[in-house]
Amino acid sequence: MAIVLGPNRYGKAEVRLVRVTRHTPTEHELCDLNVSVSLSGDLDRTHLAGDNAAVIPTDTMRAVVYAFAQDRPLPAVEEFGLRLARHFVDAYPSIDTARVRLLEYPWVRIPAANGPHPHAWTRASGARYAGVVHGAAGTEVCSGLEDVTVLKSTGSEFHGFMTDRYTTLRPTEDRVLATSVQARWRHVGVAADWDASFLAARDVMLRTFAETHSLALQQTLYAMGEAVLADRAELAEVRLVLPNRHHVLVDLSPFGQDNAGEVYHAADRPYGLIEGAVLRDDIGPALAELPW
Amino acid sequence: MAIVLGPNRYGKAEVRLVRVTRHTPTEHELCDLNVSVSLSGDLDRTHLAGDNAAVIPTDTMRAVVYAFAQDRPLPAVEEFGLRLARHFVDAYPSIDTARVRLLEYPWVRIPAANGPHPHAWTRASGARYAGVVHGAAGTEVCSGLEDVTVLKSTGSEFHGFMTDRYTTLRPTEDRVLATSVQARWRHVGVAADWDASFLAARDVMLRTFAETHSLALQQTLYAMGEAVLADRAELAEVRLVLPNRHHVLVDLSPFGQDNAGEVYHAADRPYGLIEGAVLRDDIGPALAELPW
Amino acid sequence: MAIVLGPNRYGKAEVRLVRVTRHTPTEHELCDLNVSVSLSGDLDRTHLAGDNAAVIPTDTMRAVVYAFAQDRPLPAVEEFGLRLARHFVDAYPSIDTARVRLLEYPWVRIPAANGPHPHAWTRASGARYAGVVHGAAGTEVCSGLEDVTVLKSTGSEFHGFMTDRYTTLRPTEDRVLATSVQARWRHVGVAADWDASFLAARDVMLRTFAETHSLALQQTLYAMGEAVLADRAELAEVRLVLPNRHHVLVDLSPFGQDNAGEVYHAADRPYGLIEGAVLRDDIGPALAELPW
Amino acid sequence: MAIVLGPNRYGKAEVRLVRVTRHTPTEHELCDLNVSVSLSGDLDRTHLAGDNAAVIPTDTMRAVVYAFAQDRPLPAVEEFGLRLARHFVDAYPSIDTARVRLLEYPWVRIPAANGPHPHAWTRASGARYAGVVHGAAGTEVCSGLEDVTVLKSTGSEFHGFMTDRYTTLRPTEDRVLATSVQARWRHVGVAADWDASFLAARDVMLRTFAETHSLALQQTLYAMGEAVLADRAELAEVRLVLPNRHHVLVDLSPFGQDNAGEVYHAADRPYGLIEGAVLRDDIGPALAELPW
Repeated sequence: MAIVLGPNRYGKAEVRLVRVTRHTPTEHELCDLNVSVSLSGDLDRTHLAGDNAAVIPTDTMRAVVYAFAQDRPLPAVEEFGLRLARHFVDAYPSIDTARVRLLEYPWVRIPAANGPHPHAWTRASGARYAGVVHGAAGTEVCSGLEDVTVLKSTGSEFHGFMTDRYTTLRPTEDRVLATSVQARWRHVGVAADWDASFLAARDVMLRTFAETHSLALQQTLYAMGEAVLADRAELAEVRLVLPNRHHVLVDLSPFGQDNAGEVYHAADRPYGLIEGAVLRDDIGPALAELPW
Repeated sequence: MAIVLGPNRYGKAEVRLVRVTRHTPTEHELCDLNVSVSLSGDLDRTHLAGDNAAVIPTDTMRAVVYAFAQDRPLPAVEEFGLRLARHFVDAYPSIDTARVRLLEYPWVRIPAANGPHPHAWTRASGARYAGVVHGAAGTEVCSGLEDVTVLKSTGSEFHGFMTDRYTTLRPTEDRVLATSVQARWRHVGVAADWDASFLAARDVMLRTFAETHSLALQQTLYAMGEAVLADRAELAEVRLVLPNRHHVLVDLSPFGQDNAGEVYHAADRPYGLIEGAVLRDDIGPALAELPW
Repeated sequence: MAIVLGPNRYGKAEVRLVRVTRHTPTEHELCDLNVSVSLSGDLDRTHLAGDNAAVIPTDTMRAVVYAFAQDRPLPAVEEFGLRLARHFVDAYPSIDTARVRLLEYPWVRIPAANGPHPHAWTRASGARYAGVVHGAAGTEVCSGLEDVTVLKSTGSEFHGFMTDRYTTLRPTEDRVLATSVQARWRHVGVAADWDASFLAARDVMLRTFAETHSLALQQTLYAMGEAVLADRAELAEVRLVLPNRHHVLVDLSPFGQDNAGEVYHAADRPYGLIEGAVLRDDIGPALAELPW
Repeated sequence: MAIVLGPNRYGKAEVRLVRVTRHTPTEHELCDLNVSVSLSGDLDRTHLAGDNAAVIPTDTMRAVVYAFAQDRPLPAVEEFGLRLARHFVDAYPSIDTARVRLLEYPWVRIPAANGPHPHAWTRASGARYAGVVHGAAGTEVCSGLEDVTVLKSTGSEFHGFMTDRYTTLRPTEDRVLATSVQARWRHVGVAADWDASFLAARDVMLRTFAETHSLALQQTLYAMGEAVLADRAELAEVRLVLPNRHHVLVDLSPFGQDNAGEVYHAADRPYGLIEGAVLRDDIGPALAELPW
């Protein structure tokens, strides 16, 4: 029996890149990214002997992220991730696989006297996700959502569940359903109209949350994933992590008041946590276990 | 020389109240609040002797917040704060002053097949603030913004500043200016069309940020406050806290690349912090030091 | 009626300074600080006209913090704050008052084969606070605590409080009392054995929390402040902000179990918030409203 | 091609359980836990049809966590996790696998007049981790650390790395090395003296961080894992996630000052992220991909 090195990788996390594209001196586009790079390959020597000949410093990875934001037009996050991932594998012989994870924070133009302002914005909520894996085993692109909080105030039931001596929850035919969506959807290929695909998948996912009469958050999860796959032929799998942000009806009866689904306490912890995958039955497993 | 009790107050902080108003079984309004109550008065006995006869439990304050959300239509946050503050002073002889602080988190309806969905939303960014002080010294209402992040990618200079042996900053005629706005605006009176006033003040404040050619964040701060007061006769003072979220132009010259205002690093810490008041010259001081 | 500039100040917040003192190549001391500087003075021209001739860039303030950490031995945080504050007022004619706020994060040496390791540490919890105000109105030093969480599992009662139609809380003769201490204590003078004073005041404050039989958190607050002042002649005022971190006894009766003060749910929000000052009756008000 | 349900699980996350053990009315022990449960099994019907007959409400999971904290003496977190995991699989036919994740927050007794106080504590830093997987595929226990921040101020070099056109980092023979340790170590069996094993593994891990002369954080990672396995026969694998919290030497030369490894800026983002496994060569893969 010996002690050995197992799977490993390393990189630079959370490079905060803001890219301004100047169409004219006053008409700009804004792109606000959080980019993380993680590389793996033949890195035994640094672990076992502190020999760094095969190591690209994480400082260099940061430099590449910034440099690649400059010398080409900045494309969709999926494409930008592909360019970065391919660079790391192509340029460095010791690296066989690169993962690039990107979050894009949305901004909306400030309404000004003559319409949306050409170079001033307010930050909107949530984030768009892209994840790229590229290496000897192939290339894979995921898109998705991060921290997109949604709520519906009716159209959600929960009953018929298993009961035992530890059950105190009462069945309900009308509850608030709220969650913060973490979604990953895996593309069939490595080329697409990324922006159009993202917007369409996001819209069908959120609309399905809104329009599905829910009997369980699990059912809603499956419906959201199924609707995206049914609508988007370029996608093969949807992975969702849905914390159930409980809204508890406040008991106002001690004060002689009814509370027919109107006044809720929004609880912090604990929360339910529902995780699941929806996929086409003819696809292989993801190169990196989802979600990441 | 003796040791004595000084100023004191106590309350319940961050009551998370979500109010659903059901116009029909499926057409709803949503109001998502974070309410904090703080009371002061004749509370010496609890501090000095642990005699709680004058103490309203903070648990009771929470109950009042929820109960008042039920038995009347939920008004604007300023009005809701006034109702709560007046109740605490009126109902409890030991209490002479109440402060109520409210944050309202915005939600937008999910776009569905037939337009905005009647009972499903996504959470938007930032928050609306209201603060009410009510007591023997009078009644005062503030409105404002919390965590509203704005950025402009040009129209901002910074030069002509004092230099000495510790100066390394270079003057610039074009920089990114970004800040997370914490704003408080104090009303002249205690009645107003709160929603209309809020929306108008917010819009003029953000528009002024966008449209002011900035020579310093201090100048932008003053312009934002002045514009609000010039536009809104019902307001007497504006107080702003503006962290300067530095965006640092990345030096790409080691890679043979120019970077003419395109690629920035968004820094976390340290950050500049600019604080100031703009007010009418004929008003008295605020009942509680702003901002709170 | 005119619109005018009110009180204002500006500075650099959260300069993260880590200072290593090398007694020998391998025997080191570590000092981990978070330093914020805020200046006020004759700054009308920058606000009103964007004329920055009187403005020291916040970048310069950061440089001063780092430079002052180098060219002298690093003293106690109170003394380091005094040096910084005096520099800003002395060196810059436009500045009449400086505030410096410091948090020191504690580290403890890792136990190694031959005792505490000479240059390796783990981070401990909480922080030591120091705040200095220096200007035309005088000079003032506060010390204190930030984020020091304490809990006692008995020796805390709460009953005899006011009841009304909104009361649901039941009186208790035994509850868990937990809070995260934010403490500021104001010194009489501007010279002291800062480290000894800090340690003594902290110890008496925490010991008083532990040893006071509590009838209300307000009573505990007063006892903590009073004990510090009774013990430390160099201190004039104690200001405390004590969130009441509620621990709720879980109702296990549905499962046929007793729960005699053993199993608690630690709640996040809402929380009680108790704020108060304890002071000597012969001192004047603080130069800057506490706590800051 | 059909759309199907993939891997899924659900549970209750972050149950905040504080357990007081009363040896006498005033002599107590404190155990502060954050418990998350996640179950998987035959849950197709709830996803596909909203039929919840196989679903144990997450509310019930919370109840079980609290109930199990009461009716037996509270054991080590690993054992408590085993009891919970076994209950969920044994009691509910639809569940074939349970994961339980526990964090234990440390507290230290407040020093009082007569020694450590019998029922008052301050919160210490970091957390102890335990993770249990139990099901048809077997039973597995991990122990570990969460948020344990360590720093060494010398004994760390980094040079000999690959360079290219994007390299700006200079090699160094003396740098600050700081990281926040997330560690998981997998046990060979499902019975052990959990507390003794945890303390010994933690101590050897931290001591190895301190005493290893580091040529790369990867080398330190491997050394930490190897030392734990060499010392603890009951352990089979160590998994580490080590963010490299960069401390950047401040350039004081513009102010005419040297800075020979004394004054550092502690940066927030980006950070390096080093992940790796160290394991015995005769063990099988973990039941759930580490770390979780």
